[in-house]
Amino acid sequence: MTEPNPESSVGLVTPSIEHFEQAIELDCGVTLDAYDICFETYGTLNAARDNAVLVCHALSGDHHAAGYHSPEDRKPGWWDNCIGPGKPIDTDRFFVVCPNNLGGCGGSTGPLAVRPGTGKRFGPDFPIVTVRDWVASQARLADRLGIDTWAAVIGGSLGGMQVLQWAIDFPARVRHAVVIAAAPRLSTQNIAFNEIARQAIRSDPNFHDGHYYEHDVVPEHGLKLARMVGHITYLSDDVLHTKFGRELRAGKINFGFGVEFEIESYLRYQGESFVGRFDANTYLLMTKSLDYFDPAQAHDGDLTRAVSGCKARFLVVSFSSDWRFSPARSREIVRALLDCDRDVSYVDIESDLGHDSFLLPIPQYHKVLASYFRRIEVQA
Amino acid sequence: MTEPNPESSVGLVTPSIEHFEQAIELDCGVTLDAYDICFETYGTLNAARDNAVLVCHALSGDHHAAGYHSPEDRKPGWWDNCIGPGKPIDTDRFFVVCPNNLGGCGGSTGPLAVRPGTGKRFGPDFPIVTVRDWVASQARLADRLGIDTWAAVIGGSLGGMQVLQWAIDFPARVRHAVVIAAAPRLSTQNIAFNEIARQAIRSDPNFHDGHYYEHDVVPEHGLKLARMVGHITYLSDDVLHTKFGRELRAGKINFGFGVEFEIESYLRYQGESFVGRFDANTYLLMTKSLDYFDPAQAHDGDLTRAVSGCKARFLVVSFSSDWRFSPARSREIVRALLDCDRDVSYVDIESDLGHDSFLLPIPQYHKVLASYFRRIEVQA
Repeated sequence: MTEPNPESSVGLVTPSIEHFEQAIELDCGVTLDAYDICFETYGTLNAARDNAVLVCHALSGDHHAAGYHSPEDRKPGWWDNCIGPGKPIDTDRFFVVCPNNLGGCGGSTGPLAVRPGTGKRFGPDFPIVTVRDWVASQARLADRLGIDTWAAVIGGSLGGMQVLQWAIDFPARVRHAVVIAAAPRLSTQNIAFNEIARQAIRSDPNFHDGHYYEHDVVPEHGLKLARMVGHITYLSDDVLHTKFGRELRAGKINFGFGVEFEIESYLRYQGESFVGRFDANTYLLMTKSLDYFDPAQAHDGDLTRAVSGCKARFLVVSFSSDWRFSPARSREIVRALLDCDRDVSYVDIESDLGHDSFLLPIPQYHKVLASYFRRIEVQA
Repeated sequence: MTEPNPESSVGLVTPSIEHFEQAIELDCGVTLDAYDICFETYGTLNAARDNAVLVCHALSGDHHAAGYHSPEDRKPGWWDNCIGPGKPIDTDRFFVVCPNNLGGCGGSTGPLAVRPGTGKRFGPDFPIVTVRDWVASQARLADRLGIDTWAAVIGGSLGGMQVLQWAIDFPARVRHAVVIAAAPRLSTQNIAFNEIARQAIRSDPNFHDGHYYEHDVVPEHGLKLARMVGHITYLSDDVLHTKFGRELRAGKINFGFGVEFEIESYLRYQGESFVGRFDANTYLLMTKSLDYFDPAQAHDGDLTRAVSGCKARFLVVSFSSDWRFSPARSREIVRALLDCDRDVSYVDIESDLGHDSFLLPIPQYHKVLASYFRRIEVQA
């Protein structure tokens, strides 16, 4: 048994693109005749094809979960601390697949893609995709890769919602479902924060009803605000206090509207750097997908009935200070699974880092993941 | 003893304006040579002049706390449920004074006022005022009205901060200090939410660096967003759930960006109606005043020393579901007062209505206020 080694990395990786000529009918009623899915893989698919792990990304994530695209990269993929040789999702044992979701801006077909026959980007005309649509498109990617059954499907936040949907829609294709910092549906407050993000983007004059590409601008103020709201709510009050307190940039207040408190500087920086790497139309789509997710709805709001057909073993993880996807929301999932006698483990990790905890190498959290994954059986 | 009667009202009221030709030196170093304070009064000052109660308003409040300006008004003043004959702040016994703060947009000198000698509004050049500045200007108003000592100073949220400052700065002039849903200083998270409000307003192209009046526009999108963020955070997750849940406007999702969930409709409405009644430059000033408030700072962060000179009796009130000014923050005030043997009562009111509770006629809350005020001695 290898102990996790934080130095180890999957190294240089190159994204792949699979082109699908099969039409996909989306929940919204629109049919996409063809589309691309951009994804990365780490590790090797074994001969039995039973060691594949699907990693589902969250709101602002993409397919680049681990490793580096070039030796000059300052940062590795978004979950590099968790995926790699000897890490919790151990690439010495598992073949890890992480796709960019349909509607994303990382290389899969989405608002940035050129619409066939028009020579123009989809932009705001890209249809709103749902968690179910993503799962359907990921299932086709699995077919293409020759993966009949995932050893595990794992994800945090919006990624955790995809995991739950996978276990519901394809019970025979998921052996282990690892649902982290998720909820069976958004709370009213969550929807409200998403609505603010949308209003911020859509009321930016540079948004041009989503056709900003054609004006060579981006709705940067709106996207920046959306990200700033996100950032505050992904962190706990405590960690904000510990990290920034009421520290003043210049040591004293200046009675002006420039940066005074360190937290202001941090938020502005986070907002600005996001604008450079993320597409506003994709952000809008992702928030809608979050709002719409509600697998119990088709069963008169009964989550137990919604998950009653699941066959996977579940690991559900929450974080004590996460107030956007609180432990109580994870326990709703656990309770529904227990109500229909599913095999479920649940851990609430003590952490003051808020919702962002799911991305961070919290020792207790990584220990739980590592030991869970070690017990997943795969052929040599 | 009169039982509170929700039907009773102070009736029609007319704001007054006092003009001050005395220069006031503000904390920021700027001196205002002259200024107006707009205020309302309810009830009658008794011969002993010992029954005056000062009501301090919060971020988006003004001097119109009770009664109606015209028989056609659809709504009374912002605290009409608490101020009036037979109400908790009983105008049959007390003479209530509620000023609009300096820098406000309700009639006191602020960004909307014409700057002497320029023919133009102050706009963004109005100096940033602090809670201390407000208290100093309110003290001058008290002088003008012949009120040497307040029977009580009362306020919620930013209003509660003014109450604390009054008790610190003018210990001999405050008999009772009623501090509701307040904090001895903002948390990092609070400052972060304020920064988002400021960024939303200041990045609106209609803001024109604060000179929007001259362009005949208002930064409506920014101010609307600022108010929407405020609204979410003033309510608890629970009350949002109870009031709006995941109810859909049209009964089903539409896969579009119009209003879908009821909460979206509510937030948009709240944001839009605020734009019509509040000035963006004032909103910016008020958030800064909140951020800067920190009476302990002058005492190396020691709140106990900051309040050690207070002579008032205190009533401190918090609300169980208030996460912007949580009960723990009220208890910091209580602890500091107890540490220096001040006379303090503290009540945490069970309420699922969040920070907004302080404005609402919650029976237990109003009972506490009513019984506290009944025991304040005033001459007949």
